[in-house]
Amino acid sequence: SLARIKASGLKLQLCTNETQATRESFVRKLRALGFDISVSQVTAPAPAACHLLRERGLRPHLLVHHDLVPEFAEIDKTNPNCVVLGDAAENFTYANLNEAFRLLIGMEKPVLISLGKGRYYKETDGLKLDVGAYMKALEYACDIQAEVVGKPSKRFFESALAELGVPPEQAIMIGDDIVNDVGGAQQCGMRALQVRTGKFRPSDENHPEVKPDAYVNNLAEAVDIILQEM
Amino acid sequence: SLARIKASGLKLQLCTNETQATRESFVRKLRALGFDISVSQVTAPAPAACHLLRERGLRPHLLVHHDLVPEFAEIDKTNPNCVVLGDAAENFTYANLNEAFRLLIGMEKPVLISLGKGRYYKETDGLKLDVGAYMKALEYACDIQAEVVGKPSKRFFESALAELGVPPEQAIMIGDDIVNDVGGAQQCGMRALQVRTGKFRPSDENHPEVKPDAYVNNLAEAVDIILQEM
Repeated sequence: SLARIKASGLKLQLCTNETQATRESFVRKLRALGFDISVSQVTAPAPAACHLLRERGLRPHLLVHHDLVPEFAEIDKTNPNCVVLGDAAENFTYANLNEAFRLLIGMEKPVLISLGKGRYYKETDGLKLDVGAYMKALEYACDIQAEVVGKPSKRFFESALAELGVPPEQAIMIGDDIVNDVGGAQQCGMRALQVRTGKFRPSDENHPEVKPDAYVNNLAEAVDIILQEM
Repeated sequence: SLARIKASGLKLQLCTNETQATRESFVRKLRALGFDISVSQVTAPAPAACHLLRERGLRPHLLVHHDLVPEFAEIDKTNPNCVVLGDAAENFTYANLNEAFRLLIGMEKPVLISLGKGRYYKETDGLKLDVGAYMKALEYACDIQAEVVGKPSKRFFESALAELGVPPEQAIMIGDDIVNDVGGAQQCGMRALQVRTGKFRPSDENHPEVKPDAYVNNLAEAVDIILQEM
């Protein structure tokens, strides 16, 4: 399906909330599976966070997955004035959570930047709490609201569109997550298709807030429809 | 001050949100400091939780401090159908949090009982996230509301009153925490004094929701006023 999009002349950008690895390693995995994708074709929360940090002169304390740290290599992390929270997995220790909390509560105006707000996800050894749960813990303890830079934030989709160089009304989002993919893209002015694969659940078709522009059974069908309508 | 209350013939009950130790060890500490207090004079979240567990036939999975476990010795913990959350401190590991989460999300109707909802507290080595932060994490991940059994819950003060054998209008709460002590007791129909010691902050005197029946500079002054008014 991706090859057919490429052959058609349409532009393609992958939007992922992956925060357990750098884009480089994400792309390496996809290329090993036979997908012809480059790093610039991937929009991910960590680079979006770096953009925001630079823009506002923020120096982060990182509570993220060990494998994500290289994404922040160019960022000044001395004397931190904000906390960046990702899916830190094994790094979510009692000591590390207290450390992030102490930094935040010690700031005159605590700034917490979260690379997503997922509730949980599944791995081969079972369900795991996602970054959103830890974000809520810190939000409550400090009585603050985090700034979320991953999907479904508007900023995230805007940066994907900027990379493509197209306005929202000329872009279509295809995703399996009714809130993060479909809802987020629509909030940004794009149309959005929901695939009935992956995270899709039948109850999504009665979602109280989000209505996709169309449902498709899978990615191949989405590409069929888009190419037909060109 | 406690001795003067005792000598006056008034009844006394200590209401604590302590969940890092049993009442026995809590009382042992107080007695070592010279306070003439017995275990039945202490109302604490863990026994309140045990009462609720028995009442509803619930079998808990415990995510609590190691030293609190004996409070649950008499409770059936096989094949858990709820999670009891306390200030687990070093037991708040990534693995333990995921385990509690998996149990909850696997229940048809997840039941989370929290022994408090404090945001943070101070220890000699610095500030620590309190049970409320972890409660929020699990609430968000499972999309549920925890049942809080410590202060300021009405149930907690009712069980203290039951122990005293007096109706709320004949009881006075003295505490340093504007929301958990003063607000909770008032919700239960008691009068409440706030002492200007411990957790007290000058901003408490402009609290948007809770107005104590009176402020006193310290516990001795509270006892003076109560004995004068008898």
